[in-house]
Amino acid sequence: MSIPLPAPAARVLTLEQILAVLPTLDLLPAIESAFNAYSAGQADVPPVGELMFDTPPGDAHIKYGYLRGSDTFVIKVATGFGENSSQGLPSYSGVMLVFNARNGMLETILLDGGHLTNVRTAIAGAIAAKHLAPPHVERMAVIGTGVQARMQISAIAGIVGCKQVTVWGRRADSVAAYRADMEAEGFTIETARSAGEAARGAQIVVTTTASTSPLLDTPDIAPGTLIIAMGSDTPAKQELTAALVGSADVCVVDSRSQCRTRGEMHHAIVAGTRTADSADELGDVIAHRALGRTNAWQIVIADLTGVAVQDIAIATAVSSAVSSTMNSPHHHDPLQRDA
Amino acid sequence: MSIPLPAPAARVLTLEQILAVLPTLDLLPAIESAFNAYSAGQADVPPVGELMFDTPPGDAHIKYGYLRGSDTFVIKVATGFGENSSQGLPSYSGVMLVFNARNGMLETILLDGGHLTNVRTAIAGAIAAKHLAPPHVERMAVIGTGVQARMQISAIAGIVGCKQVTVWGRRADSVAAYRADMEAEGFTIETARSAGEAARGAQIVVTTTASTSPLLDTPDIAPGTLIIAMGSDTPAKQELTAALVGSADVCVVDSRSQCRTRGEMHHAIVAGTRTADSADELGDVIAHRALGRTNAWQIVIADLTGVAVQDIAIATAVSSAVSSTMNSPHHHDPLQRDA
Repeated sequence: MSIPLPAPAARVLTLEQILAVLPTLDLLPAIESAFNAYSAGQADVPPVGELMFDTPPGDAHIKYGYLRGSDTFVIKVATGFGENSSQGLPSYSGVMLVFNARNGMLETILLDGGHLTNVRTAIAGAIAAKHLAPPHVERMAVIGTGVQARMQISAIAGIVGCKQVTVWGRRADSVAAYRADMEAEGFTIETARSAGEAARGAQIVVTTTASTSPLLDTPDIAPGTLIIAMGSDTPAKQELTAALVGSADVCVVDSRSQCRTRGEMHHAIVAGTRTADSADELGDVIAHRALGRTNAWQIVIADLTGVAVQDIAIATAVSSAVSSTMNSPHHHDPLQRDA
Repeated sequence: MSIPLPAPAARVLTLEQILAVLPTLDLLPAIESAFNAYSAGQADVPPVGELMFDTPPGDAHIKYGYLRGSDTFVIKVATGFGENSSQGLPSYSGVMLVFNARNGMLETILLDGGHLTNVRTAIAGAIAAKHLAPPHVERMAVIGTGVQARMQISAIAGIVGCKQVTVWGRRADSVAAYRADMEAEGFTIETARSAGEAARGAQIVVTTTASTSPLLDTPDIAPGTLIIAMGSDTPAKQELTAALVGSADVCVVDSRSQCRTRGEMHHAIVAGTRTADSADELGDVIAHRALGRTNAWQIVIADLTGVAVQDIAIATAVSSAVSSTMNSPHHHDPLQRDA
């Protein structure tokens, strides 16, 4: 058959290459811009694709989209299999694909194994803290002890300058490991006997679990608190009671359309304690099209389920940075001298 | 930050590696099995993900899913940008990703550039011909002159043993190139001045264009004809009038759920000439759970929009074959002798 064959020249970036450029990138403003573009209607972001697995339990999410007028579009796959640690594997994995938006050619494969999803998720928490934290943060609480429990606290601490953290987790060994790891990073870690106890002494509460039943309720949250709820990103997962979400003074979501079917807002909407229209979008808060927090005693919930524009921003930034700092062996023509 | 970093060890298969194993694979029965599993309810196949582009016009489709109980799941991206040929690029591209369904790790990246989508699409046409062609096929017609116009005819000829083909295309130069290429492959090619004229002398008619207005109508189709309509895979594309689809004796679709929103059946349903329930699924025909064609004079339409199970089948087959024939440099540990 005389079929014209394609000549895929996609560049494959390894985790090592990605890690080498990450510290050189100013990702927070890039992801703020992406949220802004999303909320301003400049992004085409279809609903999240999803596969669910039973034995063992796990999920795969496909987030994809593009910023109109951009040269590229991005398709991101992220997987989560909570029982992986028993095999010595991380509980998450994934890959990001950068395509040319003018001709559909695959340009770059980011073999990040899910790390860039972790990074952009943590940065979203930092962005929420930047725009929604109360003026004085003396203590943070983190519910959960996994990767995001670490990365969120580190990223948010970079914004609010707080190193005092109370942690709650289901497993004593995980709590101990969290404490050891984070104290090595310069944090002072207290532990609590319940999620509520952890939250009650904190001005920022970050929920990072895969729980499917609420861990925090209205009495646990003091006036002025910012709750960054990033653990729930599916219809089933829930960390906050619908009553708590309903009683918050301000709700901010990364995507109003997505929060109708995923995350904490979704449960509040189902329970009738809150409407999606009552929530501001984070991109609107960033761009001052929405008010967000207006005083120090409001309880504010930032419900983050993760939007493809974050993936677009980080994949584009990493891909561009690698392009400008090295020649990929996949693109290198040995007959050509570098220009 | 003491974040446990993933160690992505995904194997990257180049087009050369893929092409090397393709001839060794018996893909038709593998894809028949996949259609059978799909129609028997053994596959989890979410709706197709889609991005549409305007300048230049193009689309990206994400097809993904898994066969329950399988060790892997597959995510496939296929892009189509019709104006690429003006840049010397193929009009399609893509990539297939094979993940471990027990732990979510990315195992294999098939850098096929869309070729495997072309192959599995052509094989679906051959499967339709195997089960739905009239007993005597003396001439085939093909509407369109692109990659699928070539691959479908070659694949179907392998089933029905017919080398006489009438082609119609919009552009004289494309028709001339088609004739030259296919005659070099042993076909005898006639040309026609309209799609209808091409179809009128044929027992199998294959439509392979990206047209958004119908090219064939009821008077063009003789009793006994099998129409394999594979060009339309989006809500907008259409090659057959709704009247023609409505008047067919038998309609077979690859996916009844998908045909409600994509392809020829979709337009017939909107026009009210046919219901989705009146169509058999190809997998049911393959497994004799549905009748399909029951006599030589029925007009049969096979409306194929492409289902992720085809991608799963071909990606799994290629991936397994490469595993068994070579060690990937990405997996090779230089300190270990091969076992």
